[in-house]
Amino acid sequence: MPDEIIDLRSDTVTKPTAPMRAAMAAAEVGDDTLGEDPTVIRLEQMLADAFGFSAGLFLPSGVMANQLGLRLLVPPGQELLADASSHFLLYEDGGVAWHGGILTRTAVSENGLLDPAVLARLIRPTTPYGTGTKAVAVENTHNAGGGVVYPLATLQEIRRVTREAGVAVHCDGARLWNAHVVSGVPFDAYGACFDTLSLCVSKGLGAPAGTVLLLDADRLEEARVMRHRMGGSMRQTGILAAAAIHAFENHVERMAEDHANAKTIAGVLNDSGLDVGTPETNIVFVQVPDAGKVQAACMAAGVKVSVMAPTTVRLVTHLDVSAQQCERAAFTVAKAVSEAGTQA
Amino acid sequence: MPDEIIDLRSDTVTKPTAPMRAAMAAAEVGDDTLGEDPTVIRLEQMLADAFGFSAGLFLPSGVMANQLGLRLLVPPGQELLADASSHFLLYEDGGVAWHGGILTRTAVSENGLLDPAVLARLIRPTTPYGTGTKAVAVENTHNAGGGVVYPLATLQEIRRVTREAGVAVHCDGARLWNAHVVSGVPFDAYGACFDTLSLCVSKGLGAPAGTVLLLDADRLEEARVMRHRMGGSMRQTGILAAAAIHAFENHVERMAEDHANAKTIAGVLNDSGLDVGTPETNIVFVQVPDAGKVQAACMAAGVKVSVMAPTTVRLVTHLDVSAQQCERAAFTVAKAVSEAGTQA
Amino acid sequence: MPDEIIDLRSDTVTKPTAPMRAAMAAAEVGDDTLGEDPTVIRLEQMLADAFGFSAGLFLPSGVMANQLGLRLLVPPGQELLADASSHFLLYEDGGVAWHGGILTRTAVSENGLLDPAVLARLIRPTTPYGTGTKAVAVENTHNAGGGVVYPLATLQEIRRVTREAGVAVHCDGARLWNAHVVSGVPFDAYGACFDTLSLCVSKGLGAPAGTVLLLDADRLEEARVMRHRMGGSMRQTGILAAAAIHAFENHVERMAEDHANAKTIAGVLNDSGLDVGTPETNIVFVQVPDAGKVQAACMAAGVKVSVMAPTTVRLVTHLDVSAQQCERAAFTVAKAVSEAGTQA
Amino acid sequence: MPDEIIDLRSDTVTKPTAPMRAAMAAAEVGDDTLGEDPTVIRLEQMLADAFGFSAGLFLPSGVMANQLGLRLLVPPGQELLADASSHFLLYEDGGVAWHGGILTRTAVSENGLLDPAVLARLIRPTTPYGTGTKAVAVENTHNAGGGVVYPLATLQEIRRVTREAGVAVHCDGARLWNAHVVSGVPFDAYGACFDTLSLCVSKGLGAPAGTVLLLDADRLEEARVMRHRMGGSMRQTGILAAAAIHAFENHVERMAEDHANAKTIAGVLNDSGLDVGTPETNIVFVQVPDAGKVQAACMAAGVKVSVMAPTTVRLVTHLDVSAQQCERAAFTVAKAVSEAGTQA
Repeated sequence: MPDEIIDLRSDTVTKPTAPMRAAMAAAEVGDDTLGEDPTVIRLEQMLADAFGFSAGLFLPSGVMANQLGLRLLVPPGQELLADASSHFLLYEDGGVAWHGGILTRTAVSENGLLDPAVLARLIRPTTPYGTGTKAVAVENTHNAGGGVVYPLATLQEIRRVTREAGVAVHCDGARLWNAHVVSGVPFDAYGACFDTLSLCVSKGLGAPAGTVLLLDADRLEEARVMRHRMGGSMRQTGILAAAAIHAFENHVERMAEDHANAKTIAGVLNDSGLDVGTPETNIVFVQVPDAGKVQAACMAAGVKVSVMAPTTVRLVTHLDVSAQQCERAAFTVAKAVSEAGTQA
Repeated sequence: MPDEIIDLRSDTVTKPTAPMRAAMAAAEVGDDTLGEDPTVIRLEQMLADAFGFSAGLFLPSGVMANQLGLRLLVPPGQELLADASSHFLLYEDGGVAWHGGILTRTAVSENGLLDPAVLARLIRPTTPYGTGTKAVAVENTHNAGGGVVYPLATLQEIRRVTREAGVAVHCDGARLWNAHVVSGVPFDAYGACFDTLSLCVSKGLGAPAGTVLLLDADRLEEARVMRHRMGGSMRQTGILAAAAIHAFENHVERMAEDHANAKTIAGVLNDSGLDVGTPETNIVFVQVPDAGKVQAACMAAGVKVSVMAPTTVRLVTHLDVSAQQCERAAFTVAKAVSEAGTQA
Repeated sequence: MPDEIIDLRSDTVTKPTAPMRAAMAAAEVGDDTLGEDPTVIRLEQMLADAFGFSAGLFLPSGVMANQLGLRLLVPPGQELLADASSHFLLYEDGGVAWHGGILTRTAVSENGLLDPAVLARLIRPTTPYGTGTKAVAVENTHNAGGGVVYPLATLQEIRRVTREAGVAVHCDGARLWNAHVVSGVPFDAYGACFDTLSLCVSKGLGAPAGTVLLLDADRLEEARVMRHRMGGSMRQTGILAAAAIHAFENHVERMAEDHANAKTIAGVLNDSGLDVGTPETNIVFVQVPDAGKVQAACMAAGVKVSVMAPTTVRLVTHLDVSAQQCERAAFTVAKAVSEAGTQA
Repeated sequence: MPDEIIDLRSDTVTKPTAPMRAAMAAAEVGDDTLGEDPTVIRLEQMLADAFGFSAGLFLPSGVMANQLGLRLLVPPGQELLADASSHFLLYEDGGVAWHGGILTRTAVSENGLLDPAVLARLIRPTTPYGTGTKAVAVENTHNAGGGVVYPLATLQEIRRVTREAGVAVHCDGARLWNAHVVSGVPFDAYGACFDTLSLCVSKGLGAPAGTVLLLDADRLEEARVMRHRMGGSMRQTGILAAAAIHAFENHVERMAEDHANAKTIAGVLNDSGLDVGTPETNIVFVQVPDAGKVQAACMAAGVKVSVMAPTTVRLVTHLDVSAQQCERAAFTVAKAVSEAGTQA
């Protein structure tokens, strides 16, 4: 076993910092199922204000936030449009269909971003016996697209096209923080493009758990019932919300370091002859002949990476890995790929 | 009200012929929910044999046949791939998601036919927390694509790609009869490409009602329970099956007339300056500035057409319209478009 | 194989009579999915008028009619109350839960009839996080209760209790005809007790297939979409509706014969020492040590009976069995029970 | 506003103690979605061992634990039996039907406990077209029954009856701790009666959030996917698990105080002329003419109570209310009832 493990599998693996732990230990709490946890209320209000929404709802996970947001916008048997590589389609166990009864039609793209012109063609009205489009889902940054950032102009054009058609928009904003840091687009400019927006606090932000779903206040009561039905109503969750507040106040702008570290990694890999392009945010995809073999070789050398597809390895930078560690990890990956290639 | 109505809205509007009525009146029947209707059994066996399947199941409608076939192949929460303009997505009320809990990802094409290369990119394995592809759905001929026929080679390539990945294939063959008549491809060559196949007997074939789902005999018991749960188990349905048998024995090859009539219509419309292309089978799509207005003008002149989209009118030829009627209807449509255009 | 088979498994096994076949052969038809089949429209109107409803909808089966009626009254995740031995719970494959997402709570009774006092205790309001009662389902006559008839006063008390609580009532009236014939209660007096009512035409009435769901006209559009989603929209179903009209006009009052025949059977069985009580309508339940063994012995002697439970055999009289056949069958059953007992 | 608020609405309102907060602050954590949180693993193993199960799964809430446990035991469209006043039926938003597609049939009792003889009558086998019983759910202690404890002999008889029929048993053990403290029945004697068992750590135990579902290890993988699909997979939840471990090690036996306090409350109320019986555990139900009015009067006097039905008030004792507070609250309630009565 190597002395040091550098874990680049995901930005979900971060552990709470000491001040974050102190914030949790001191948190004022109440019964959140009864709507009485003051720290949860403060977190929900803080994010709603920042992004220009009238309400927020704290949830155990991004999976629940996406499913809940989409179900608020799309009744069972109605239609949702999205890119074919959206997280909610690839990695959420089909919950949107099983639990929500939502019909999905998708466009196929290279990088996970919807083309507003294609979207306009796919949207259709509800007619007798015809399933109509009720909502569109976007993801920013886009995970399966390699952490790419939606240009604000594209989001605004999607907003325009959908508004004309009476169609709502949900944003999976698990990594919207990263998009904000890179693009400089203010939170509320993003918020203005969406009807519901999920914001994960346990990825780049580094809190232990939870996602806040932003929404219109007049949908809050329905959302609370849905959360309860899905099993997401907890009690003294101010403990977790306190960590999220600390993270929101202290860990947003520092993601610039994660982005710089991702660029460092990409530089090493590009120099080694692998073509990984230039990452926009904190995700680096590496195409290799055999991802499983590369993963194992990296692991043996103390670097953990993810396998996204039989020939795709993913590295994600985050709060718990330093610039030095990222550089070292990149050399480890380059070596693993090189050796795996010659051994094949 | 015009003297004569020429109904080109769909090939579903045909009425039973006199010999078909005689066949129904004389049908031997039993309780089909108990599996005892001899005429239903004969129909199911006849179509299974023709297409090289080991079993068939008579169902009230194509909607039920598609949903049931897809549900046999894809458990709740798992994934189905299809073209974004498939009938089961556009015109079946989201049942595949609501009732079946099936997650759908789609490719977008011009004519509704899946490109095997795109398909190969979209197929993915089941992993922990990852929804895997369980089946692909094709539609032949493709309604929203304008009655286009899948080249057999394309279907065979889809079969090859899916078989390698352990993925099943369902075919919505509501109008597979038309594909067969145009292409000359034998029934069983089509059948060999699919795990489940729905065959409508009330469109081009002209029977009053019903669709037969072809499947593997070892799935029949499960399919019968699903049919019952969906409310599709009827009793002395040999009455309807007798009409289907008559239609299968007498109305397949005559669809060549419907195809000739569609070409006649297209010829008149193309001559009038509308560009409708050359229909492959019995469906003609006409792009117009205002489909509702054209529909109304045609109706006033005794010709019924369908509105498929705000600027798309559809004409479908069938057993109950003659060559002369189709030609006359085409002139009516051309005139309606011309006048609607000048009035706009 | 015996010369003659007397089939008492169910009143679903009847075959169309010659005049019924003639009615079907002559039926005027249209495309019912488009709402244009004149004979279907006539049937729906005829039954709606008779029972005092504003609309009717022709469906392939009673299973679909029950599920559709209940789904009109109860949204997903809300509550339905019923007797624990209701047909829709025991014999409809859980469709009300799987497809409808309806939560069911039940009372347990000896004969399948709900006690209004128990019902009043079970009804509860919707509160935040509390699933409220939206509808109650009754079944008249009650199949698993042995064909027993709900006293009109009980139905009226259920109507009163539910109305006060803002709760709707659905009646599974597959055999409401039998209740009417026995009780003399007019159709519309029954109808006044229910919000939705399913009437089977292929049991006692003897038509080949179909059930009409009666409902308020303002729910008809939604019901038509639900029917389509469930796969129950057919085309020229006037063929089947013509049989139903003939049956409604000719086969209602004659069910008195079926009831007399059931009493004859019960008399023979009671005389033989079996205690089967006195059937109210056309169903006789016989408690035996081994139902499977009795069924087999009866079959060998040319009499078909149903097994309802390991120690329960059911006999149902209908249009296709005469008084003489019923008497003969009763002696066969008595003998089979007697011999099965001594062989055990 | 009164100086002091005594909150008897539920045992969910307790706040973490100082040592519990310290345990959370010091917790070793990892990514639980990846199965790598050591404190979560320790909690799951600790409870599995205590109750004689081979695996445990930490979940955000009891609602999710009940739904997940039941879905492991009952496939969509199959049947679950329970008492009509079970928590999962009354207070979980119909999730078992909506998300799980589970059909429920219930017995009606006075106190929420299933009678094994009634249960034996309700269980039925799966047949073609017949929905079979797959599981039974019990709740111990039973909330709506007033915190009553299942006699171990009754649970063992239920276990025997179900085992013979091949039917599984789930226990909603949100308050099984209370049953254990009162009855002295060892944890593993309870555990031996169930296939799945949910144990809440945020009611009597006093931890902030979470429920552990105990199950067979061979169902764990499926359960983890279900948890993810429902949105219950969190990340560094060792924070919450640490509180649960502290509670399990320190707060079980002390529930005897809660039970004594409930008896004190009942004594005061019985003396005042209200007949509330003798509570078995920590729940007291009071029948009053107008529960809303009594609740308001209590609130004005600094005592919070729950309204369970229009004429039922509930008081629950817990970690955060002392013997003195409970006595004082009881007098407040008695006075509120007396005054509400005279004012009516």
